[in-house]
Amino acid sequence: MEPAVSEFGEEELIKFVLEVLDEGFLPKNEDCAGFLLNGKVIGFCTDSFVNKTDFPPRANYWFAGWKTVTMCVSDAVSKALEPCAFIASVNIPKSLPYVDFKRIIYGMKSACRYYGVKYLGGDIGESDNVVLAGAVVAVGEKEDVVLRSGAKPGDYLAVTGPFGDARIGLELLLGKVKATKESALDRKLILKFLKPIARVEEGLKLSKRTGVTSRIDSSDGLAASLWLLADLSGVGFVIDKLPASPELLEFCERNGLDAKEFVFYGGEEYELVFTVSPDRWHEVEEIAKKHSLNVLRIGRSTAEKGILFIDASGGEYKVQRRGWTHLRCER
Amino acid sequence: MEPAVSEFGEEELIKFVLEVLDEGFLPKNEDCAGFLLNGKVIGFCTDSFVNKTDFPPRANYWFAGWKTVTMCVSDAVSKALEPCAFIASVNIPKSLPYVDFKRIIYGMKSACRYYGVKYLGGDIGESDNVVLAGAVVAVGEKEDVVLRSGAKPGDYLAVTGPFGDARIGLELLLGKVKATKESALDRKLILKFLKPIARVEEGLKLSKRTGVTSRIDSSDGLAASLWLLADLSGVGFVIDKLPASPELLEFCERNGLDAKEFVFYGGEEYELVFTVSPDRWHEVEEIAKKHSLNVLRIGRSTAEKGILFIDASGGEYKVQRRGWTHLRCER
Repeated sequence: MEPAVSEFGEEELIKFVLEVLDEGFLPKNEDCAGFLLNGKVIGFCTDSFVNKTDFPPRANYWFAGWKTVTMCVSDAVSKALEPCAFIASVNIPKSLPYVDFKRIIYGMKSACRYYGVKYLGGDIGESDNVVLAGAVVAVGEKEDVVLRSGAKPGDYLAVTGPFGDARIGLELLLGKVKATKESALDRKLILKFLKPIARVEEGLKLSKRTGVTSRIDSSDGLAASLWLLADLSGVGFVIDKLPASPELLEFCERNGLDAKEFVFYGGEEYELVFTVSPDRWHEVEEIAKKHSLNVLRIGRSTAEKGILFIDASGGEYKVQRRGWTHLRCER
Repeated sequence: MEPAVSEFGEEELIKFVLEVLDEGFLPKNEDCAGFLLNGKVIGFCTDSFVNKTDFPPRANYWFAGWKTVTMCVSDAVSKALEPCAFIASVNIPKSLPYVDFKRIIYGMKSACRYYGVKYLGGDIGESDNVVLAGAVVAVGEKEDVVLRSGAKPGDYLAVTGPFGDARIGLELLLGKVKATKESALDRKLILKFLKPIARVEEGLKLSKRTGVTSRIDSSDGLAASLWLLADLSGVGFVIDKLPASPELLEFCERNGLDAKEFVFYGGEEYELVFTVSPDRWHEVEEIAKKHSLNVLRIGRSTAEKGILFIDASGGEYKVQRRGWTHLRCER
């Protein structure tokens, strides 16, 4: 018997693919491909939603469509490339209710409209799972493009929103954590999972041109994102502010949970994590203020490797090198 | 119980999606989306390969990778748009042998190299079937773009190669037709199914600028392609030459099969089917000769609706309005 892919794991598979890929304008280790056309950067990215691994039973398929678009849009805007067109390959089982098929398409359409992207086409096929492969074409200027590498020691570390909410939302849906019975609170957290928002304005208005030195979208969790930025830029990070929402803190307190666990290792959110030259931080602040963008400074990059969180009382916590592993939502 | 998608059929699903899609530069009924960027047309298309429906048991996965690229490239070049970058969402079961995963990636890489397209990235996910969703970005000039609509009565009808070989190859693989025991002949037909070639040079060198009035790539069979051109252009066709290879004719004679059945309703080949203004046919001929392109004139479009094949002895045969339905290759 030949060994199966499961014996190798996703990282090994990705490593193999990276060796085979051609060189484009963007480095291979980015989540978005790119090439130059008449001096413009054309970005090109794909992301798949699979109900088997990405979706709790009985969730509404509208959100599957929404999320497929969000994943692709987020990949593009984190590089400061403006998404303009979306297409999707929609593969579904024959037994899927027609109404769910329609929900998928409407979810995609709604997300495209929300992000200002044209939903232009695709392809329909049959498979045993619902497999939605979205793809986006984006356009930008060379001077704006932000990569995962590029952080320098001393840069400010910032994010576009709180972390961990989506993970709690998912665990609520799966019945893995106890609901607070405060339905408004629970619902808010669940919606953060089901209907994540890609940070389009933040991604496009804050770019290399305005002092951003590195950036990633955090679909695999804050810790994994920070480790990627750290490894590719050759820096470490010290975090002095935990990017947690009041809802998350309240929920964790009520349930006796460690908020840090959700903030750092949650995943399934699409916030941007980025670094900024300290001498240009004021530019970022001005732009954020002018356009009401979500920007929160949470720390600094350091010459010393490793990622450290220092809490308000001076306690030190080492952020572990572990990522989001797909929560299985087997049906 | 909500009715399932199987009760509606692919056409109904496509109709629903078409109503939801946004308007782009290319009409919605094309297999390729498009938008304008600085005066250039950017084409953007996706196509999925699913082993459940598209692949005979025990076939080598290298061909699955090859075919995924070919499908996307063919969609682009049939519009006279030059494909420049390819990405793929590769969804596979955990039990897939690692060697088959590598074959998929190598097959994609080989096809990209063959077509002069850069293989720039993608995404890996888990699903119960092998679902390969390829996407291509292509570039072209407005003046070149060829649509499915546009054929005028009197136009010449032409194709870039013979039809039916791939279907016989597939049926040989599935054991549905008897092998001739002439292994070279059988192998040639099987290879036409496993390793189809998109007609890149023909698609790009022959365009609207050189007199092509309408075009489609024939992945659903010659009859289905002709009916689409006919319906969208508002014409009919008379065919006076059956585009069949010597191999197909030999195979059908040996097996007592009707060659017309395979030529018109075979599918899974990626030849281009196109119409040309009669007064510009000489241009097409000259370009074909100069660049050694495969171009075969097989008939004419007519004001009268319907599609008729008239054989060498004057016998008339009505080409039916039936397409390729995916041959189930259930494993």
